[in-house]
Amino acid sequence: MRTKEFKNIVTKYKTVFFDAFGVLKNHKGIIPGIDKTFDFLDDHGINYFVLTNDASRGPEALAEGYRSRGIKSITPDKIISSGMLARDWLALKIKEGTVAYLGTRQSAHYIETAGLDTLPISQINLDDVEHIKCLVFLDDEGFDWNHDINKVINLLRKRNMPVVVANTDINYPVSKNDIAVAVGGLSDMVEEILGKYFIRFGKPDAQMFMFAYEKACEVKPLRRDEILMVGDTLFTDIIGGNKFGMDTALVLSGNTLPEMAKVRITSSGIIPNYVCPSVLINGEF
Amino acid sequence: MRTKEFKNIVTKYKTVFFDAFGVLKNHKGIIPGIDKTFDFLDDHGINYFVLTNDASRGPEALAEGYRSRGIKSITPDKIISSGMLARDWLALKIKEGTVAYLGTRQSAHYIETAGLDTLPISQINLDDVEHIKCLVFLDDEGFDWNHDINKVINLLRKRNMPVVVANTDINYPVSKNDIAVAVGGLSDMVEEILGKYFIRFGKPDAQMFMFAYEKACEVKPLRRDEILMVGDTLFTDIIGGNKFGMDTALVLSGNTLPEMAKVRITSSGIIPNYVCPSVLINGEF
Amino acid sequence: MRTKEFKNIVTKYKTVFFDAFGVLKNHKGIIPGIDKTFDFLDDHGINYFVLTNDASRGPEALAEGYRSRGIKSITPDKIISSGMLARDWLALKIKEGTVAYLGTRQSAHYIETAGLDTLPISQINLDDVEHIKCLVFLDDEGFDWNHDINKVINLLRKRNMPVVVANTDINYPVSKNDIAVAVGGLSDMVEEILGKYFIRFGKPDAQMFMFAYEKACEVKPLRRDEILMVGDTLFTDIIGGNKFGMDTALVLSGNTLPEMAKVRITSSGIIPNYVCPSVLINGEF
Amino acid sequence: MRTKEFKNIVTKYKTVFFDAFGVLKNHKGIIPGIDKTFDFLDDHGINYFVLTNDASRGPEALAEGYRSRGIKSITPDKIISSGMLARDWLALKIKEGTVAYLGTRQSAHYIETAGLDTLPISQINLDDVEHIKCLVFLDDEGFDWNHDINKVINLLRKRNMPVVVANTDINYPVSKNDIAVAVGGLSDMVEEILGKYFIRFGKPDAQMFMFAYEKACEVKPLRRDEILMVGDTLFTDIIGGNKFGMDTALVLSGNTLPEMAKVRITSSGIIPNYVCPSVLINGEF
Repeated sequence: MRTKEFKNIVTKYKTVFFDAFGVLKNHKGIIPGIDKTFDFLDDHGINYFVLTNDASRGPEALAEGYRSRGIKSITPDKIISSGMLARDWLALKIKEGTVAYLGTRQSAHYIETAGLDTLPISQINLDDVEHIKCLVFLDDEGFDWNHDINKVINLLRKRNMPVVVANTDINYPVSKNDIAVAVGGLSDMVEEILGKYFIRFGKPDAQMFMFAYEKACEVKPLRRDEILMVGDTLFTDIIGGNKFGMDTALVLSGNTLPEMAKVRITSSGIIPNYVCPSVLINGEF
Repeated sequence: MRTKEFKNIVTKYKTVFFDAFGVLKNHKGIIPGIDKTFDFLDDHGINYFVLTNDASRGPEALAEGYRSRGIKSITPDKIISSGMLARDWLALKIKEGTVAYLGTRQSAHYIETAGLDTLPISQINLDDVEHIKCLVFLDDEGFDWNHDINKVINLLRKRNMPVVVANTDINYPVSKNDIAVAVGGLSDMVEEILGKYFIRFGKPDAQMFMFAYEKACEVKPLRRDEILMVGDTLFTDIIGGNKFGMDTALVLSGNTLPEMAKVRITSSGIIPNYVCPSVLINGEF
Repeated sequence: MRTKEFKNIVTKYKTVFFDAFGVLKNHKGIIPGIDKTFDFLDDHGINYFVLTNDASRGPEALAEGYRSRGIKSITPDKIISSGMLARDWLALKIKEGTVAYLGTRQSAHYIETAGLDTLPISQINLDDVEHIKCLVFLDDEGFDWNHDINKVINLLRKRNMPVVVANTDINYPVSKNDIAVAVGGLSDMVEEILGKYFIRFGKPDAQMFMFAYEKACEVKPLRRDEILMVGDTLFTDIIGGNKFGMDTALVLSGNTLPEMAKVRITSSGIIPNYVCPSVLINGEF
Repeated sequence: MRTKEFKNIVTKYKTVFFDAFGVLKNHKGIIPGIDKTFDFLDDHGINYFVLTNDASRGPEALAEGYRSRGIKSITPDKIISSGMLARDWLALKIKEGTVAYLGTRQSAHYIETAGLDTLPISQINLDDVEHIKCLVFLDDEGFDWNHDINKVINLLRKRNMPVVVANTDINYPVSKNDIAVAVGGLSDMVEEILGKYFIRFGKPDAQMFMFAYEKACEVKPLRRDEILMVGDTLFTDIIGGNKFGMDTALVLSGNTLPEMAKVRITSSGIIPNYVCPSVLINGEF
C-alpha cells in the first residue's frame, strides 16, 4: 500500500474533518505530537472539526477531555458529536414534554439542552407512560442492563413513540485489547426484538456530515470537495465521507492495520483518496 | 380464515409434534382442558412430542413443569428441547475439557450431561483462558448483563473457540403483555459485534425437527408426512415443519391473532396445511 | 384511524414535499383533480416540490410527464429526483473520464450533465477497463439482464471503483396488480454477491431530503419544521421525513391501505404527524 | 498456518463427504491426480460421497461429468445434490399436480422424478394460475431474466404457493477469474422484493448433511463423528459440517487462499479440525 504524508496532502483543502478515536487519540490517550498537527493547520489557515459518534457527554465536556490533556485547539465549537444531531432533532420534532432515556445522568445533557424534561428509564412507572413523548438511547452506562433493557422493550410495546439512537456505533475500545458494547449495539438488539424502526444518528449516515458541513460553512462558505475527511475506519469515516462528496484519507494509526489496508479496500470497494500512516506532522514546517 | 377442529384433522397422523408456548400453555399456565387432548391422542394411538426452544432446564425439569400442573402425559421422554441438541453436539465435537457458559446453574445441566466441565462466565479469569474449549449461550438469567456480556466478547477476541447458542428465540413472554430478551437475542448482538459465526440450535432450524423425528422413529418407524407439526407461530413452527416435509397446523391460541392469520399467511408465503382455533378437543369422543 | 383533510393541515406549512407515485399519480396516470391541489397551494403561497426515486429520465423529461397530462404547475425546477443526487456526486467526486452505466440511453443524461463520458455496460470490453472511473446503476431497462449483470460483477472484480446506485427502490408498479424489479433491487443482488459497498441515493436516505431542503431554501429560507413531507409509504417517505426533522403526512391513496394504516404505524413505530385520505382538495376554497 | 497431509488424517474416518468445486475440480476441470485419492480411500475401506449445491442436472448427469473425465469412482449413488433434497421435498409435500420452475429443461429432472408435472415460467399464462401448486428455482440458465424474473414476482403476488430454492449458492465460478449469478442469488432478490419466505436447500443447511448422512448409514451404520467433511469454503462446507457434528477439513486448493486461511478462521470463528493443502495423495501408499 503506497501511503502519503498527511502534511503533503492536507494543504490542498480548506477544512479537515477528523475522526477522534484511532486518529487523534487511542487507548493510551491523546496520540503524542498531535498538537503539532493542529499548529500546522492553524499556520496554513486550514479549519478543522472533530466528528465523533458519542452522546455520553456534551461538546463542552468532550472538548475539556482534549484541553486537560494539553490540546487547546479543540474548543467546544470544533466538536461535532452524534448527540448534537439528536438534540437538534428533539428540538425540531418533540418541542415539549418528557423524554425517556437510557444512559448516564451526564448524557441527558443532550435532552435538557433541547428544552425537554428528562426521565431515566429506571424511574419510569410502566403503568403511567402516556406523558412520555420519545425515547433516546444515549449511553451504554448508567443503567442496569438486566432490568432496564427489558423495561425499554415493554415501554415501547405499551406506547408507540419515536425512538432516537444518538450513537450508531455498536462497540468501542476500552483498552489495548478489549472492547465494550456501545449503545448502538444495544439499540440494534431492541429494534430486532420489537421489529420497529429507530432513528439513528452518527457516521456513516449523511446527516452527520451535513451537520458538520453546515457548521464549517458558517465559518467560511466552501464546497464539499474542499473538505478532507480523515478517519481510521473504512466503514464509517471513509464510506460516509465519500458518499457526502468529500475527499477522504484513511490513516493507519487505528483499527485498519497497515498490512490489511489494501485487502480491505479491495474487498469492500470503499476507496479513500489517500492512505496516510497517521496525521502526525514530521519534521519542521 | 376457515378453520378446522383439531380433532378432525389429527386422526390422519401417526405422531404429533407440539410447540409448547401458545399451544399447550400461555402466560397464565397450562391451557385448561389440554389434558383431554392428550387423552384423545392416547385413545387413538397417536404418539406426541413437545418441541421447545429452551435450554434453561433439562427435560426432567421441563416435564415436571407439566406434571406438577396436572398433565401427566408429558413425561421427560416426550420433551425435545433445543438444549438437548446442544448437549449432543458438545458430546460429539468437544468430547472433553471445560466449557464456559452464560446462564443459570440449572441450565448448565446440558453441559454436565455431555460429560464436560462447566465454567460460568463470571468465574472466568481472562488471563487464563487456554483451557476453555467452547462457549455456550444457555439462558438469559443467572449472570450480570452489564459486566458479563462484555466479558464474553473479550473472551472470544482473546481465544478463537466454537460458540453454541442453545436457544434461537430472541424473546419470550413473561406475562399477558410483557416480554423479555431471550438468550438468542443476546447472542445475536454479540455475534454482530464480533463478526463471528455461532452455531444455533432450535426451531425453525431443520436439526431440531430431525432430532425429534429420530426420537419418534425409535418408538415406531414413520414417514415425515405421517407427522403433524402444530404451532402458533408461522416463522418458527410452521416454516420449519413445512421445510422438513411434515404437514403443519397453525393454532390461533397464541401469538397469531385470529384476525391477522390470513394476512400473515398471504404476506409471508408460509402456508400451513390447516388452521385450527386451538388444540382443545370439544365435546365427547 | 382518524384522518384529516389535507387542506386543513397543509396551510400550517410554508413548503410541501410530495412523493410522486401513490400521491400525485397511480397506475392509471395522474390522479384526477390533483391540479386543484396545486392551485390551492399557489393561492395560499405555499411552495412545493416533487421528490422521486427515479433516475430513468432527467428532470425536464419527468416534468414533461406532468405537463403533457395537464399539470402545468410541476415545472422542471420543482422536480427532485434521486438521479440528480447521483449527478451532483459524480461532478464532485469523479470530475473527469468515463463512467460505465446500467440503464437506458435516456438515463445516461445524469452522467452526461455531470460533464463525463458515458459507456453502457454492453459496450465494455472486459480486457480494457483501466479507463473506467465509476459504475452507475441508473435504470432496470436498456440492457440484457442475463448477460450484462454478470458482466457488471466481473467488471467490479477486475477493477476496484466506486459504484453509485441512483435509485434505492427495489421495485416499482407497472399496472394495477403488477410490479417490476427496480434498479435498486438489481444492485442489492450484485452488492450481496460481491460483498462490496455501494453508494445509494434516494428516499429514505437523508441526503435526498437535504438536497430538496437546500433547493427549497434557495426560494425562501425556512426551517425544517416549516416543511410538510407527504407520502404513501411509511418506510421511505415518512421515516425519512421524520428523521430529517420535517413534519409528515401519510396519505392512503397509494400503497398503504386504509384498513392497514393503524396496524402498520403501530408495528413499525414510524409515526406520521397526520394521516390524510389523499392530497385532493374537496369543495370550494 | 500449519497444514496436514490429507492421507494422514483421512484414515481416522469411516466415511468422507467431499465438496466438489475447489476440492475435486476447479475451473480447468477435474484436478489431476484426484483418481489416486479415490483409489486410496477404496484401498482403506473408506466410503465417500460428493455433496454439491447443484440442481442444474440430475445425479446421473453429474456422475457422468466425472466418469467422462476418467473418474470412475464417482457413480450416481455417490452424488448428493441439493436438487435431490428439493425432489424429496416435492414428493412429500406436493404429491400431485403442476410445479412451475425457473431453469433449463434438464434441471426439471428433479420435478419430473418426484412424479409431478412441470411448467417452465415462460409458458405460464398469468391469467390461469390456479392449478400451479409450487414454484421451484432450479438453475440460472434456460430463461429470459428481463422478462421471466418479473413474471415470477407477479405469479407469486397473484397466488400464494410454497417456493423452493434448490441451490442456496449465490454465485458460481465460470472461469479462472469470472463468476456468474447462481439461482440462489436470483431467488434472494425475488424474496427481498416480495417479503415472502422461501424454502432453501443446500449447504450449509443441516438438511443437506442429514440427507447425506442417511445415505451413508444405508451403506453401513456410523456415528456423525466417524465422518470427515472436506471443503474449500468456511462459510458452507466447514460451518455446516461442524454444526452437524462431523469433523471437518479445510483444503486450500479452492477459494480459501493459503495466505488468508488463518485470518479467515480467526475472524469468522469457523474452526476446521484440520487444514490440508489439498486432497491429493502424494507418494506411494
